[in-house]
Amino acid sequence: MQWITKGNQRRKVFSTIVLCTVTLVAANWARARDAAEEVATGAQEQFQFFSFMTSDHYATYERVALWCVLGVAFAGLGYAWMLIGQVKSADTGTPKMQAVADAVRAGANAYLAQQFKKIVVLIGVLTVVLFLTALNSPLPVALGRAGAFLMGSLFSFAVGFVGMRFATLGNLRVAAAARTSFGGALQVGYRTGTITGMLTDGLGLLGGTLIFMAYGEKAYEVLLGFGFGGTLIALFMRVGGGIYTKAADVGADLVGKVEKDIPEDDPRNAATIADNVGDNVGDCAGMAADIFESYEVTIVAAMILGYASFGHKGVIFPLLVRAIGVIGSIISTYSVRSKEGDSGDAALDSVHRGFLIGSVISVVGFFLVGWFYLRFDAAYLLQYKQSVAGYPGGVNALPAWINLGQPGLDLRPAWTCLIGVFLAVALNKCTSYFTHTAYDPVKSMAKACQTGHATNIIQGFAVGYESTVWAAIIIAIAIGASVGIYSGTSPIFVAYGVAMCGIGMLTLTGNTISMDVFGPVADNANGIGEMGYDKAEMGEAQYKKARQILADLDSVGNTTKAETKGIAIGSAVIAAVSLFASFIAVMAMGSEEKISEMTTLQYNNVAGMLTVANPTLFIGLLIGGTVPFLFSSMTIRAVGRAAFLIVKECRIQFRDKEIWAGTKTPDYARVVSICTTAAQKELIGPGLLAIMAPLAVGFLLGPLALAGFLAGMILVGQLLAVFMANAGGAWDNAKKLIEDEPRDLAKNTGKGSERHKAAVTGDTVGDPLKDTAGPAINPLIKVMNMVSLLLLPIVLKFHAVEGVADSGKSPYAIAFIIALLALAAIVWAVHKSKTDSPEMAEMEKEFETA
Amino acid sequence: MQWITKGNQRRKVFSTIVLCTVTLVAANWARARDAAEEVATGAQEQFQFFSFMTSDHYATYERVALWCVLGVAFAGLGYAWMLIGQVKSADTGTPKMQAVADAVRAGANAYLAQQFKKIVVLIGVLTVVLFLTALNSPLPVALGRAGAFLMGSLFSFAVGFVGMRFATLGNLRVAAAARTSFGGALQVGYRTGTITGMLTDGLGLLGGTLIFMAYGEKAYEVLLGFGFGGTLIALFMRVGGGIYTKAADVGADLVGKVEKDIPEDDPRNAATIADNVGDNVGDCAGMAADIFESYEVTIVAAMILGYASFGHKGVIFPLLVRAIGVIGSIISTYSVRSKEGDSGDAALDSVHRGFLIGSVISVVGFFLVGWFYLRFDAAYLLQYKQSVAGYPGGVNALPAWINLGQPGLDLRPAWTCLIGVFLAVALNKCTSYFTHTAYDPVKSMAKACQTGHATNIIQGFAVGYESTVWAAIIIAIAIGASVGIYSGTSPIFVAYGVAMCGIGMLTLTGNTISMDVFGPVADNANGIGEMGYDKAEMGEAQYKKARQILADLDSVGNTTKAETKGIAIGSAVIAAVSLFASFIAVMAMGSEEKISEMTTLQYNNVAGMLTVANPTLFIGLLIGGTVPFLFSSMTIRAVGRAAFLIVKECRIQFRDKEIWAGTKTPDYARVVSICTTAAQKELIGPGLLAIMAPLAVGFLLGPLALAGFLAGMILVGQLLAVFMANAGGAWDNAKKLIEDEPRDLAKNTGKGSERHKAAVTGDTVGDPLKDTAGPAINPLIKVMNMVSLLLLPIVLKFHAVEGVADSGKSPYAIAFIIALLALAAIVWAVHKSKTDSPEMAEMEKEFETA
Repeated sequence: MQWITKGNQRRKVFSTIVLCTVTLVAANWARARDAAEEVATGAQEQFQFFSFMTSDHYATYERVALWCVLGVAFAGLGYAWMLIGQVKSADTGTPKMQAVADAVRAGANAYLAQQFKKIVVLIGVLTVVLFLTALNSPLPVALGRAGAFLMGSLFSFAVGFVGMRFATLGNLRVAAAARTSFGGALQVGYRTGTITGMLTDGLGLLGGTLIFMAYGEKAYEVLLGFGFGGTLIALFMRVGGGIYTKAADVGADLVGKVEKDIPEDDPRNAATIADNVGDNVGDCAGMAADIFESYEVTIVAAMILGYASFGHKGVIFPLLVRAIGVIGSIISTYSVRSKEGDSGDAALDSVHRGFLIGSVISVVGFFLVGWFYLRFDAAYLLQYKQSVAGYPGGVNALPAWINLGQPGLDLRPAWTCLIGVFLAVALNKCTSYFTHTAYDPVKSMAKACQTGHATNIIQGFAVGYESTVWAAIIIAIAIGASVGIYSGTSPIFVAYGVAMCGIGMLTLTGNTISMDVFGPVADNANGIGEMGYDKAEMGEAQYKKARQILADLDSVGNTTKAETKGIAIGSAVIAAVSLFASFIAVMAMGSEEKISEMTTLQYNNVAGMLTVANPTLFIGLLIGGTVPFLFSSMTIRAVGRAAFLIVKECRIQFRDKEIWAGTKTPDYARVVSICTTAAQKELIGPGLLAIMAPLAVGFLLGPLALAGFLAGMILVGQLLAVFMANAGGAWDNAKKLIEDEPRDLAKNTGKGSERHKAAVTGDTVGDPLKDTAGPAINPLIKVMNMVSLLLLPIVLKFHAVEGVADSGKSPYAIAFIIALLALAAIVWAVHKSKTDSPEMAEMEKEFETA
Repeated sequence: MQWITKGNQRRKVFSTIVLCTVTLVAANWARARDAAEEVATGAQEQFQFFSFMTSDHYATYERVALWCVLGVAFAGLGYAWMLIGQVKSADTGTPKMQAVADAVRAGANAYLAQQFKKIVVLIGVLTVVLFLTALNSPLPVALGRAGAFLMGSLFSFAVGFVGMRFATLGNLRVAAAARTSFGGALQVGYRTGTITGMLTDGLGLLGGTLIFMAYGEKAYEVLLGFGFGGTLIALFMRVGGGIYTKAADVGADLVGKVEKDIPEDDPRNAATIADNVGDNVGDCAGMAADIFESYEVTIVAAMILGYASFGHKGVIFPLLVRAIGVIGSIISTYSVRSKEGDSGDAALDSVHRGFLIGSVISVVGFFLVGWFYLRFDAAYLLQYKQSVAGYPGGVNALPAWINLGQPGLDLRPAWTCLIGVFLAVALNKCTSYFTHTAYDPVKSMAKACQTGHATNIIQGFAVGYESTVWAAIIIAIAIGASVGIYSGTSPIFVAYGVAMCGIGMLTLTGNTISMDVFGPVADNANGIGEMGYDKAEMGEAQYKKARQILADLDSVGNTTKAETKGIAIGSAVIAAVSLFASFIAVMAMGSEEKISEMTTLQYNNVAGMLTVANPTLFIGLLIGGTVPFLFSSMTIRAVGRAAFLIVKECRIQFRDKEIWAGTKTPDYARVVSICTTAAQKELIGPGLLAIMAPLAVGFLLGPLALAGFLAGMILVGQLLAVFMANAGGAWDNAKKLIEDEPRDLAKNTGKGSERHKAAVTGDTVGDPLKDTAGPAINPLIKVMNMVSLLLLPIVLKFHAVEGVADSGKSPYAIAFIIALLALAAIVWAVHKSKTDSPEMAEMEKEFETA
């Protein structure tokens, strides 16, 4: 393996170039063959932009509706703009508070700036690759796919960047507002979160709508590009942010709490600011980018499948549903407020009431729109032949729960959206049950702390394992119900049903992200209060009251943040399952553009090949199942390695007697910079794995194995992600439960007791699981899905599959070379992930000589 | 849920009866329909026992060969008998040593006696149910299935029981022999293990051969019964033993090491004997029963698929391979010995040399036998039409690596056996790499202990996650290679290839179990030395030397035991994958007996239905994936609950001042009895889950979902089992690594240091994972597989599947009722698994008032 690691920087660049070149050659070969075929079969259709304005398929009101959707997207962005103004103009507190906030903000910005510098190269390269590999499509489509990729990735980054930027402004203002009023502080904090939420809503809707308006029925490939851009950047933001936040957290804890026995957020600890930066980088930027891509991928899936099933109405309806969701979010997030004397519970109620209001608006809205819009007649079915398969008994013979007695009405898309809303609620409740202090699971873990560190961890395993079972069963029921609604129709309709379930699930993305981002904002505000409030200046009473308000808000934020976690992974699974149908459709038709012409027979023909009885597929299934484990192993190790670097730096700074005495400010920036560099470096390995694994499987074992790979990866990814997220969350809250007890060391209760120590161990174990490895699996699932979908047409050309059209010899050698290069990249990444960095090796020596 | 838990004992009995009755009614209905069909189609074949003696399909030498195989099976048993004599006649040491050994033996026997009492009822009921549900077959087959089930379960129990019985005799003799010679002690210990090994070999081979001799081509159902009996009892032995051993271990540690700060095996600790009993109950009885059922299920799978592919030669060949393996084991285990002045390394070399000798004998043997036996000609292919599909180019057109230039020779079955041997070696090496102290993974964990409990656990996650990836990839490669050898033939041949890979893998079961059982024997011997040696009587020098010998052997035993773990789970996956083909065959043909008449077209027709693109199957896949998680959650909790009871009892005994002073012997028997009762009670829940889950899925969602369920369960089960086993093993050895360091608290090395405490936490966390939850997944996979196979013909009758023959209306209500009852049983089991026992609730109160 030495040839890989030796001089690895140069080799890495070299092998990347080789891989890209070979892929391009392969794609080009495939393209040439397609072109030859097309010449043979004659007639290349002329492509026209914005054809919906001239096509007679669209009614005038539909054209207007599409422009309205675009308008709503801008309205969402405008609302975010308005909130930015409100937050910015809020009171910014004292200079001392500002100093703390500035340090956090500077660190966060530095991180994202560096991340952007690294990512921008990758985005550039991939944009060109996507353009070149799409050249077999008409030029505007090829350009569109590359452009959409660029747009998707920039949007994803922007959501993360802007969200984090305002979170780091908002935290100071929450701390400032808390000095005078609970209600004011809640409002500033929640609205700060809403900025990110509405940005996600607005940009996601904008991108999807624009692409459909411009490309119409040719939108498939362009949408894929958009989806891939979003997921890829989300993966990097999630993994990088996750490594950053936990490296800082674990590093700060190890050197502060464990070694030096000083409290968290002690200003002498050089890692304190990095820890606060990490909250923003991980929970704001990472989570926002993650949910943005879920939002984006579900709309991509719904639009692709919508056209292939119901024709253009199937595309416009999800856009309308999303627009209603944006309106619902605007109204409901603005309604969240709190009265003067309120406390945490009332605030939580207000947030939940907001969510409920939004849900009601959305559900009523999409049933109303469905009532008016989802009308189908014989003329429409004649235009879109594929839609006939959705009406096995004829369009007028639907049962009453579908057409409410109105011939031609088809409310099935609305029903599946409703299932999605219920799914979101059920997953929230499930997460809440397993991770909230009020319920048995967390209590049982706090109890297990009585008998030590180990029993707490063991109990966490039991709780986490069980929680993932229920989450999977809830998702299985939702999929089953969505499938049931379309029973008797063709598989594409069924897949559309699942995709619409995903649309319903993410209707209230605005509220979801508000709730999520509110968490780190309140957490940071609490930190600013701790470090920045001036007791003397404020007076004892006001100081105490303000601190209490911040503590309450922090706790509310923890709860709201935790509640939304189930949705992220759930949406990944739903999106992946519905995209699986596109995968089969592409297999059946050989390329993307023809999938709306596919017959049920063609679909079933290919679907029949994807049998678990096929050994190749089964091997793919086995390998797919391993990827989430390998990926998690790598990200967990990355946290450990990065944390070591921080421990080292903090130790050096602690040796400075003035810093230890508290008379000199530690060099916070150095730790922030170490964290930033480490996170950037560490995300390369897992990122490579995510992109290369489908490449290797696809080119080595062929499309059937790739299908099995996807199925195994979705199944295991979902189970593992929920296990890690919930076990981690439960350990965290078990610790909080013990910390809330009255402190009494004799009775072994409260902070500092042996039970508390056991609980802290659990919390530390859970940290990288719940904030790094677990959530990173969401984008992992989607990235591998997108890569597979984009690759499939090329893979199909190199791997003759019985039953799928294949025309003669293929230069399998090229496929083999690509697979080998991809494998080599994975081996290198895995090897890297287990090797100590030079700094660690050095530290190791220190330990040994100590 | 109250109606379930209230008065649960009576309700449990009641609902079991209802469930059995309903199943019987359903089966009967299915039977009546079959009978009607048969009358309609006419001609029921006459069944004849031992038809191979009269049938002209068999050559005389084949008849002789079968009797020879039977003879070898008895030879294996005879060898075990001889070893029993040798072990029994060995020196039994002093009365003090005997007293310790007697206590352990009495406890172990008491446990198994109680377990048998409980199990015998279940065996009885299931024997009747199996008989009644098989009544649509000819009476001798129905009787055979029930009888084979009885035989399988009794054999499985006997292997566990006898093995454990002699392990508890052997440990004393090892301790006695160690007083004079290293070589003698090693030989007694290893031969004690070999008793169990040869019993497994002998009984497994005996059962399979007898059934085939008696039933010939009608053996399918009877073999299933044999397999089911073995797996079911293995599940109970594994789960019960696993809970027992870890409850005793964790309980003893918690109250001894953690609370009272006294060393392990301190005679004042009332749980000491239970802890030693646990080693025997878990590692001897549980592991032996587990490997016995792997041995049994692989032969069942190979025989079923052998007949359906190659005809009777396909059945006889695996029996011959097994017979060769038995001979190889006899020779090679007898060769394991050690010279006078040897130490641990030499002993390990000797054991490994034994394994190598056995492998060489086996490989040479089965290629030789293959050379003479695996000859096929046109006349044979005419007899067995199904075998034609194995020769797409004709029987004389095989490539040279298959026929070595001999027309008609077909060495493919031998090649796949060879792959199996390599698979066993590769899995051993993989396990060894991730869990042995000599390699990086364990070292990295010992290093992580520097920074505390949490980092050790986190590192364990990273190591365990990674290890499961490589194990899965090794298995995937082995499956791929076996499949590749049969490429171009029909799927049944491919499945036979995978099954023969399993046969090859378990060729040296005798050696594998010897190595495994040697572990607890040496461990116990060391305990007997610690408690039973009399320093004064033996003299300082001899005492020290003898103790060193025992310590060396203990360490050798730990290594050999760990090395064999990978094989257990690997064989479960291989067996499950090959049985999956039988599942499809039964689906295609509607019942078991016709599967050898199946055409490739029929197979592919049904296989095509089992597509991951089918939502029902995908939902089954999701649910199947959850079962290993739920099962593990339940078993982990069970350990915790049982350990609590032991802590309670030990605390009470510690309050007796005489016991604490060491002047009075604690009441060891009470703890043993508590452990026994608790383990019996706790295994009901997980056992119910294993049997009821396929029932619920099959009857509620149909056969397609059941197929997905199996695939998901195999995939996730294998990944989770290896993760838990290896992470646990690595934590264990990381602790040992630190314990082997020179003790220096200032440098934080060795026993008692902070690093050691962190390592102990890891070890305790790993205990229930590696010895309870992880290994129990092996029999879980196989039990669910067997239940699904047995159920399938009935499920098929109730669920019309497009493409599979179905004749009209079915009383789906019955299927629904069965599914609901099964679901209720699962819900009850899960609920139970989370409820504190009354004793725990009481203890809880004590804590609170304390």
